[in-house]
Amino acid sequence: MNMSRTRRERLVVIGGDAAGMSAASQARRLKGPDELEIVAFERGHFTSYSACGIPYWVGGAVPDRDRLIARTPEEHRARDIDLRLRTEVTDIDPDRQRVRARDLESGAESWTSYDKLVIATGARPIRPDIPGMDAPGVHGVQTLDDGQALLDTLARTRGRRAVVVGAGYIGVEMAEALINRGYEVTVVNRGSEPMSTLDPDMGRLVHEAMEGLGITMVNDAEVTKILTGDDGRVRAVATQDRDVPADVVVLGIGVRPETTLAKAAGLPLGPHDGLLTDRSMRVRGHENIWAGGDCVEVLDLVSGQQRHIALGTHANKHGQVIGTNVGGGYATFPGVVGTAVSKVCDLEIARTGLREKDARRVGLRFEAVIIESTSRAGYYPDASPMTVKMLAEHRTGRLLGVQIVGREGAGKRVDIAAVALTAGMTAEQMTTLDLGYAPPFSPVWDPVLVAARKAAAKVRGSF
Amino acid sequence: MNMSRTRRERLVVIGGDAAGMSAASQARRLKGPDELEIVAFERGHFTSYSACGIPYWVGGAVPDRDRLIARTPEEHRARDIDLRLRTEVTDIDPDRQRVRARDLESGAESWTSYDKLVIATGARPIRPDIPGMDAPGVHGVQTLDDGQALLDTLARTRGRRAVVVGAGYIGVEMAEALINRGYEVTVVNRGSEPMSTLDPDMGRLVHEAMEGLGITMVNDAEVTKILTGDDGRVRAVATQDRDVPADVVVLGIGVRPETTLAKAAGLPLGPHDGLLTDRSMRVRGHENIWAGGDCVEVLDLVSGQQRHIALGTHANKHGQVIGTNVGGGYATFPGVVGTAVSKVCDLEIARTGLREKDARRVGLRFEAVIIESTSRAGYYPDASPMTVKMLAEHRTGRLLGVQIVGREGAGKRVDIAAVALTAGMTAEQMTTLDLGYAPPFSPVWDPVLVAARKAAAKVRGSF
Repeated sequence: MNMSRTRRERLVVIGGDAAGMSAASQARRLKGPDELEIVAFERGHFTSYSACGIPYWVGGAVPDRDRLIARTPEEHRARDIDLRLRTEVTDIDPDRQRVRARDLESGAESWTSYDKLVIATGARPIRPDIPGMDAPGVHGVQTLDDGQALLDTLARTRGRRAVVVGAGYIGVEMAEALINRGYEVTVVNRGSEPMSTLDPDMGRLVHEAMEGLGITMVNDAEVTKILTGDDGRVRAVATQDRDVPADVVVLGIGVRPETTLAKAAGLPLGPHDGLLTDRSMRVRGHENIWAGGDCVEVLDLVSGQQRHIALGTHANKHGQVIGTNVGGGYATFPGVVGTAVSKVCDLEIARTGLREKDARRVGLRFEAVIIESTSRAGYYPDASPMTVKMLAEHRTGRLLGVQIVGREGAGKRVDIAAVALTAGMTAEQMTTLDLGYAPPFSPVWDPVLVAARKAAAKVRGSF
Repeated sequence: MNMSRTRRERLVVIGGDAAGMSAASQARRLKGPDELEIVAFERGHFTSYSACGIPYWVGGAVPDRDRLIARTPEEHRARDIDLRLRTEVTDIDPDRQRVRARDLESGAESWTSYDKLVIATGARPIRPDIPGMDAPGVHGVQTLDDGQALLDTLARTRGRRAVVVGAGYIGVEMAEALINRGYEVTVVNRGSEPMSTLDPDMGRLVHEAMEGLGITMVNDAEVTKILTGDDGRVRAVATQDRDVPADVVVLGIGVRPETTLAKAAGLPLGPHDGLLTDRSMRVRGHENIWAGGDCVEVLDLVSGQQRHIALGTHANKHGQVIGTNVGGGYATFPGVVGTAVSKVCDLEIARTGLREKDARRVGLRFEAVIIESTSRAGYYPDASPMTVKMLAEHRTGRLLGVQIVGREGAGKRVDIAAVALTAGMTAEQMTTLDLGYAPPFSPVWDPVLVAARKAAAKVRGSF
């Protein structure tokens, strides 16, 4: 009895969302409570929820908040995970293997020692340091609490003019959400085109489609100030050129790794301020600390460089890998190719691999092609146009990236390119891929094959 | 002038559909009429049409026949292709490099010599050798003429009972077409479940879904006779067990390579009676004869064996490769992984790679898993259930095949597996694929990844 007690290890998890709780759950699957004690700290009220789902909850497609919660605190506790909500970790002490946490209700602080530590502190939204940012009516959409606060504001606000700051995937998804709620939506965007994760020529297509949906795009706009009315509430978003009237403002500017604690503890951070790990998701140089989710940097398998990508699917994979390793198994996360897919109403936007500027930044010469095709056989009902851009390396022809803008059936086609990138295929090899064909699903040459043919021809011509 | 004339080569193409006319068009792109004369023989009335589209034309989704024609005879002729319609090649004489053709209108026969020959004679439908097969009201759906004849019958027939013989992809697509036209549809199937291109456990799901759509499935049924009425027209389909009343019968039993000419000419045929070619689509042992489309066998890259797969997307690729090689370029068709996708109303069915029995036949031991997931995040509207079966090789974990049955968004997910098969990935490698994720497009773990995780675990557990 005493022997088994002394052998029991304690795993401490910082952060109760996708990466942290996936890790905890997977570790628990592999090791029972007699072998492994699991303590998880979460400063918010919720666990294991889909932040990616918030725009659809705000927009009304998802009827209530609880549907976004994959696993409740009670469910975690039922699996012998000692989950401490509203408890914020304020210090990591790797030398003495302990963390200090504060109960946000009582203010009480205490140290908890660990044998193994998982850092899953997530990301924090970028908030420009300009006047008025904290005015009532200005909202982030990072957490369920943020989503609820925005919904409360929408319920209270009579005006119907919404301004979304930022035109990345959160920005465009929030634009859709607000359109669906009957708002007049303006998107204020720092870049020359929306979706800076695409090349500008593809971003232009998104721009045009968004305007077609009734969304006003203001590009090349730097937000200088949030203007407020006599009641202190937001009344407009000021840019260098103009004031855009706003009854509500949503910030969708993007996020940075939340690594304040890790930095203070002297853990290794990369060029984007994310934690650096090895392929087992272990923090570099620290035998008993793992990290995953939005607080880490990942290896871009195409460019060979470190990137920060905040995405639930990566966080879940990291958690799975960490939990397996913590639980005594073996798993690795080799890296990403940078796949992302999003939609604005019926417009689907997808990308994987490198953009032109990414390729240039790492010294790769490339051929770029753009083709137009359709989602189904041209004669089949509801065949919709689709534009595919493909980058292949000069001379070798190795696939470097694909971007797709279209309607139904466009987005997930990017998976073809994601797998081909992972496998290191050339455009020429891709031309003979045996992809699913039937008139309701694809033209006889899938749009990705059409792009591959053109890219391969350009690579040959360029020798 | 004379010099250039003597240098001009003649390409003869037998068959005016996808493979033949793609080859002719691509050859013409690379070589002008001064260098290359192109003569194409087609025994029917049409060129370059989508036979795969016939079920959708019959079902009414495609409003008229001409929409299925990708390129008309006039368009081919405008590109200096000497197209001879209603002209059937009756002999190939490889020794003297010539073909004999008969004008089906006048009956006149003549020889045409060639420097290069392309055989694209397609496939012929399997018609069981039983009494009544030629009765009025019994229809194949192989050609546009077949489709028109069926539509004429449907317009004339008052009864609303349709029987489809065969439950492969043509059979299920025709079942949908007839349902859409308001028929009471019974599918009579020789196998134990519909879609024998799937394993029976997945075919069972198709069976249940088809019955849910109001289609009556009669499995394990051998058609013994077509029964006719006093007027000589079809009145029922007799099987070993029962007579199924029918006002119209559609044959969707499958096809065989149409290689009568090739066989008579002594050209090499494979185990399925399809022409054998090398990777440049050149007929084995014949320097100046190429073949492609439904009349050839292809290499299955997963099993390493020859297969016959009649599919428009392969025919087009073959044509492109042949035309490039005939035109003095270089292209190859490495083989297939056996991807196919089809639908019955809103049910999507997809497969790639090997079934259990294919793997056994070539001596491969495997682990098979089946998982259930959804097309989108579970909380997102219209998330629909999807079943994925995955086969991975015992010990190595190499992906062997994937089968998917689901609703919207299920079918084209098979492309992920098609690319992974081509690349020779293992299930374990697939678990970390960076696939597109956002709630409207996928759960946080794509269904294919869920299957890969389970398959990888089973491979590990099986050591």
